[in-house]
Amino acid sequence: MSQLKKIIECVPNFSEGRDMEKIEKIVNSFRGKEGVKLLDYSRDEDHNRLVVTVVGEPEAMKKAVIEAMGAAIEVIDMTKHRGQHPRMGAVDVVPFIPVKNVSMTEAVELAKEVAKEASEKYGLPIFLYEKAATQPQRENLANIRKGEFEGMAEKIKQPEWTPDYGPAEIHPTAGVTAVGARMPLVAFNVNLGTDNMEIANRIAKNIRFLNGGLRYCKAIGIELKDRGIVQISMNMTDYTKTALYRAFELIRIEAKRYGVSIVGSEIIGLVPMEALIDTAVYYLGVEDFSMEQILEARMME
Amino acid sequence: MSQLKKIIECVPNFSEGRDMEKIEKIVNSFRGKEGVKLLDYSRDEDHNRLVVTVVGEPEAMKKAVIEAMGAAIEVIDMTKHRGQHPRMGAVDVVPFIPVKNVSMTEAVELAKEVAKEASEKYGLPIFLYEKAATQPQRENLANIRKGEFEGMAEKIKQPEWTPDYGPAEIHPTAGVTAVGARMPLVAFNVNLGTDNMEIANRIAKNIRFLNGGLRYCKAIGIELKDRGIVQISMNMTDYTKTALYRAFELIRIEAKRYGVSIVGSEIIGLVPMEALIDTAVYYLGVEDFSMEQILEARMME
Repeated sequence: MSQLKKIIECVPNFSEGRDMEKIEKIVNSFRGKEGVKLLDYSRDEDHNRLVVTVVGEPEAMKKAVIEAMGAAIEVIDMTKHRGQHPRMGAVDVVPFIPVKNVSMTEAVELAKEVAKEASEKYGLPIFLYEKAATQPQRENLANIRKGEFEGMAEKIKQPEWTPDYGPAEIHPTAGVTAVGARMPLVAFNVNLGTDNMEIANRIAKNIRFLNGGLRYCKAIGIELKDRGIVQISMNMTDYTKTALYRAFELIRIEAKRYGVSIVGSEIIGLVPMEALIDTAVYYLGVEDFSMEQILEARMME
Repeated sequence: MSQLKKIIECVPNFSEGRDMEKIEKIVNSFRGKEGVKLLDYSRDEDHNRLVVTVVGEPEAMKKAVIEAMGAAIEVIDMTKHRGQHPRMGAVDVVPFIPVKNVSMTEAVELAKEVAKEASEKYGLPIFLYEKAATQPQRENLANIRKGEFEGMAEKIKQPEWTPDYGPAEIHPTAGVTAVGARMPLVAFNVNLGTDNMEIANRIAKNIRFLNGGLRYCKAIGIELKDRGIVQISMNMTDYTKTALYRAFELIRIEAKRYGVSIVGSEIIGLVPMEALIDTAVYYLGVEDFSMEQILEARMME
């Protein structure tokens, strides 16, 4: 067959969740572009934030993302921005996610190219984060964003917080931006047949990375008041290494010691096909299965 | 978003599995065509048969399939054809399979259009079969093909075997063809931890449609001599109605009465994503899941 098409995903977050005219200006950068497909965008008024999901070929994606960053910098004034979600810039964060025939190394490379070009074009200080981070303390976005827009003018002058690209001072109205690369996140929640939050919190602790659990699993206990049950709410940060079924079965095993059963689960938002195919292959015990056997995977080559 | 793209699959079987030059002439009809993608083709020398798997948009697919039928009729002489697989024509059988945004009604419509045009263009008698069948005794391909190429000259003269399109006499070198529509087949085999064929045969009987089992499940017991185990070899003829996990769990339950366990399974060839996603969603107990949440499904819209 012909050369395999490379597909990368980008989920940029912009600090505007209220003004539809401004939102449309940003989102329009992803519309009608050859090689780029806008999958979704959702805004939150309380967070005053816009999250866009777009997939496409790396070169086309790069151009569209840089254009969208320009649109956001033009329409958003961070000195006037108020919202519940932590944020440090008009273009708050730009993660690139390998989807098909793209390695993490290529995603990191693309993140760096976008960071370099955008910093030069817009005079914007940019930090590389997660897999693109140049220092361990910059891997975690929360570390970079600490102090938020209001604290950034001072923070960025400290030698350990010199940005990876662009000037060592904030953009007056657009603040600073983090650009990075990461695996796809899967938001996977498991419901338990109890209303006991103590149990949910203990199980969440036992299975999550932070407290000695699965490496690519973040988890917290949550109360579903309407239904009178509790939930283990998880972010699976690399389903290729920490499989969904493994977290599920571990919750089942932990719940057993409290005499509690799993009563259902939820997947929030988008999920890569492979995360669920892998789960089916586990439960059916399929031998020697290859993703090449999936009709749709073959169609997309 | 824009209008949803319709995707149909076609798996035509041609009566040539040995002469590579002839095979390439047939397969070339599916190459370099806008809106058509050749996924696979495999030939079998013993069967003297070629099976092509192609996906594409309905109109483009129609043209390419009719062109391939013409190529096969040109290069294959059934009066000289010998092979182990039952066959009745140069173009033996042409099934259309809905894949995405195509209903079975549309697949049947396409089968009829192809049958009509090809019969007129090549003077070829054509029977409609499976979901496209015009009479109950023509649903099963084996009924139509009974007598094979050698018996077809006589059979086709009987009033109950008048073809749906084309002349009531065989094409002198290309015989007759069946064109139809069906759901995707999933070849799903489950391995048992025993070498007892009696047990395999009993379980196959219990779970298959023929003997009172699952409606869209064909099953036989098979011996895997190399591994010293037996297998339930299944054709799942409509995974949207008879889910893979249901057959799997039923085999587990039946095997239990003999004290036998499932030791693994196999999926042979291509499988639609949905057949396995559905299985994962069952085992994880995911509530309110939609195929729209699959990243790759969204990309293909």
